Amino acid sequence: MATDPADPRNPTGPRTSPDPAVSPSAAGEAHAPTPRGAQPRPTGTGGVFASTPPHRTSASAAPASSTTSASSASDGPEPEAGPAGLAGPGPLPAPHPGPRDALTDVAGLRVGHAQWQDGRRLTGTTVVLAPDGGATAAVDVRGGGPGTRETDALDPRNLVPAVDAVVLTGGSAFGLDAASGVAGWLEEQGRGVRVGPHPWQVVPVVPAAALFDLGRGGDWKARPDASLGRAAVEAAAARQPGHLVPQGNVGAGSGAVAGGVKGGIGTASLVLPSGVTVAALVAVNASGSAFAPESGRLYASPDADEAVSPDPDLHAGAARRLAAAVEESAARVASLGAPPLNTTLVVVATDADLQRAQAQKLAGTAHDGLARALRPVHLLTDGDTVFALATAQRPPAPSSPGGPGDAAAALQVPVQALNGILAAGAEVVGRAVAKALLAARGVDGPGGVFPSYEDLYGDLYGTRRNGGVPADEPPTGDAPD
Amino acid sequence: MATDPADPRNPTGPRTSPDPAVSPSAAGEAHAPTPRGAQPRPTGTGGVFASTPPHRTSASAAPASSTTSASSASDGPEPEAGPAGLAGPGPLPAPHPGPRDALTDVAGLRVGHAQWQDGRRLTGTTVVLAPDGGATAAVDVRGGGPGTRETDALDPRNLVPAVDAVVLTGGSAFGLDAASGVAGWLEEQGRGVRVGPHPWQVVPVVPAAALFDLGRGGDWKARPDASLGRAAVEAAAARQPGHLVPQGNVGAGSGAVAGGVKGGIGTASLVLPSGVTVAALVAVNASGSAFAPESGRLYASPDADEAVSPDPDLHAGAARRLAAAVEESAARVASLGAPPLNTTLVVVATDADLQRAQAQKLAGTAHDGLARALRPVHLLTDGDTVFALATAQRPPAPSSPGGPGDAAAALQVPVQALNGILAAGAEVVGRAVAKALLAARGVDGPGGVFPSYEDLYGDLYGTRRNGGVPADEPPTGDAPD
Repeated sequence: MATDPADPRNPTGPRTSPDPAVSPSAAGEAHAPTPRGAQPRPTGTGGVFASTPPHRTSASAAPASSTTSASSASDGPEPEAGPAGLAGPGPLPAPHPGPRDALTDVAGLRVGHAQWQDGRRLTGTTVVLAPDGGATAAVDVRGGGPGTRETDALDPRNLVPAVDAVVLTGGSAFGLDAASGVAGWLEEQGRGVRVGPHPWQVVPVVPAAALFDLGRGGDWKARPDASLGRAAVEAAAARQPGHLVPQGNVGAGSGAVAGGVKGGIGTASLVLPSGVTVAALVAVNASGSAFAPESGRLYASPDADEAVSPDPDLHAGAARRLAAAVEESAARVASLGAPPLNTTLVVVATDADLQRAQAQKLAGTAHDGLARALRPVHLLTDGDTVFALATAQRPPAPSSPGGPGDAAAALQVPVQALNGILAAGAEVVGRAVAKALLAARGVDGPGGVFPSYEDLYGDLYGTRRNGGVPADEPPTGDAPD
Repeated sequence: MATDPADPRNPTGPRTSPDPAVSPSAAGEAHAPTPRGAQPRPTGTGGVFASTPPHRTSASAAPASSTTSASSASDGPEPEAGPAGLAGPGPLPAPHPGPRDALTDVAGLRVGHAQWQDGRRLTGTTVVLAPDGGATAAVDVRGGGPGTRETDALDPRNLVPAVDAVVLTGGSAFGLDAASGVAGWLEEQGRGVRVGPHPWQVVPVVPAAALFDLGRGGDWKARPDASLGRAAVEAAAARQPGHLVPQGNVGAGSGAVAGGVKGGIGTASLVLPSGVTVAALVAVNASGSAFAPESGRLYASPDADEAVSPDPDLHAGAARRLAAAVEESAARVASLGAPPLNTTLVVVATDADLQRAQAQKLAGTAHDGLARALRPVHLLTDGDTVFALATAQRPPAPSSPGGPGDAAAALQVPVQALNGILAAGAEVVGRAVAKALLAARGVDGPGGVFPSYEDLYGDLYGTRRNGGVPADEPPTGDAPD
């Protein structure tokens, strides 16, 4: 396969003309770039995915812009190689959500939540568990107040070729202890970086990042610990691949708040025409807001259609109720103050075979999804962090130090295919933020009053709220006790 | 003071001529740069400190090169401001070790070790505790296999202005749990980033890095945990400022090995002519060696004199004994293998008032000390990490998020003064590595045979081994139990 010139992942194949294995409609997908020297042609669309509802049928999802872009690509000088066409010849489906519209649409990834939501506790931990052999991983930290663990190991220059799990956790820096429980569980499974001749000689590298939710349930000291991390990874391991992912007030999203309304976990996926899946899971906990204060309209949409603008009267009432909730929260936690810290955490993933530096690029561009979906974002009082995982359709990465690692790896993903993955990464992050807001349930507790977006604006999105795919599983099965 | 143009720290003062408050002998110190456009003059010295034994008297430590450099500085066009002369006019002392030749010569810093060195356990944790109010902190990770926690928070762009403690620990990634115990202790003291109106609303940011010592005592599962981290920080807190620092087989150096010989903790300091102190503490655990395999000569010296070259016959015997020890170790841990992972950890510190980006520069140049003292170094199988701390003769950094932070800080340390600090940082790291090797005691245990450098070469350095300052305290007082 690596010597097949028709394989779009083959770096020795043709690079200055469209790959013959890529069908015209794939090469002409809305992702296709404007060739160097060619003027972009107006298409009347709002963006890469904006006018292509991903849950429509493939027949209706081939707007004129596709043809326009395709002809541009073939007419222009020096076109780059087209997107990786993993499917055979013939019309390819437009980008559309995967079967779960969730991170678990990336084959092999599983998600476990564990949380404390009782009494005065409102916090939790979410673990993304890679398939056996791990996943290529990277990180991009863009918030000004990050709380992280094992992020230096993910520098593409460094040794560790793959990780087995990523931890998102509440509890601020204290909550990083959750990673310890995950590392312990992984060691018991013999999973981690092999450092000796025996299968049990592993050091699990467990990258983790924390968000600030101290006191959101009223108890300042309620923070995820090693036991909660272990519960979350065990919850993930108990699932079947492709499982539904609970959203909203679960896991690391338990105590999350964004702009005064309840935040939480959201997830979304896109399957590209090439067959590559790109997905994200977010824990939305931002100093900024996910919707415009002047209109109530979400900045990002849970699907590919435009976000819904609430009726002005509805918004006026919602704004009054939100202001009252913020005031009541301040009074209710007067003894705690209202710490101005936040942090939104993301895992973006793909089943493409990315090199580590490519995965880091994906982590970086995924922040663009946060930029679109949250305003303001990436402030000094956020610790916004994106982890990227690539599960890779390839043999497991060498796990012995001194193995060939990435040095011997060829450029598996051509530039334009990677561009498509990068664009999709930002897209699914934005959608996941919107879905988190729509999945969250309002909280009225000793730590404050955090209405949900739905509490304020009603069910504006109806069946659109989950991208047209099956609803979430209830989160109750994930409770640690 | 900030408006005094004679204050060398005043950025509004004259910058194109030597500061009038700086004495000629200070401006002419060997650190003085070659002015732009001027040819460097031969001085006959081997380097910044190489020919100036820091523990000699100031009278004998003013070589001709000082005068030469001074006249160069005043003759050349556009000289930069000279080193910060905090002392009054008159001859200034040459760089010399502080009273302890240790990290604790930086006022306010305290060091605590805790370790398990019983049965089949051989690992530990070292905590550097900053004075109340914390220290400006930075990090530079140059090894290829780092295990770290809370390093992203130290990016100079980010929020946290100061840290209260830094943790160096054995146990590979598992050992990062030690930071949890330190964070818990700091919270009890009300130390950390204030995030609310109450003194107890703190989030301690505890940067930590781990070295690989799994199985060095025979028990693969013996790794520092939160309890050992707490013991180490409590040991630090129990000391008086300026205390002696145990070296060798203590704390994070308990299970350390470098090039087959026993590594461990080393520390050294230099007081610059300006009065600024620069010091380092290292935990030497390298895949490379601290001495030349062909001669046995240490790459770095424990003091400012040249390292001692062992007699060739002595070296031949030492080389045979080391080879036998390496062979015996391999046999003794045949069931564990010999993991090729290592990592040398460093804290470099100064009492100068560095900005965060300047502290990061110091962390980076301190790696040059590792480059000189260890060969090879910074490999993929090392996780070499340097933390920098600046205790700063200034008001405590603002601890409330949203405070002025560094944005309002002026350039407190002129370029040439900073250059002197940077050079000294690399110098003390090299000396500390040598002192670690000389302080280490040989280990013959179930995890292997690790002779000390002294076991192999005898006491080559005599009274030079500690820079001419008082010997270490015994480490026994630091045991956690």
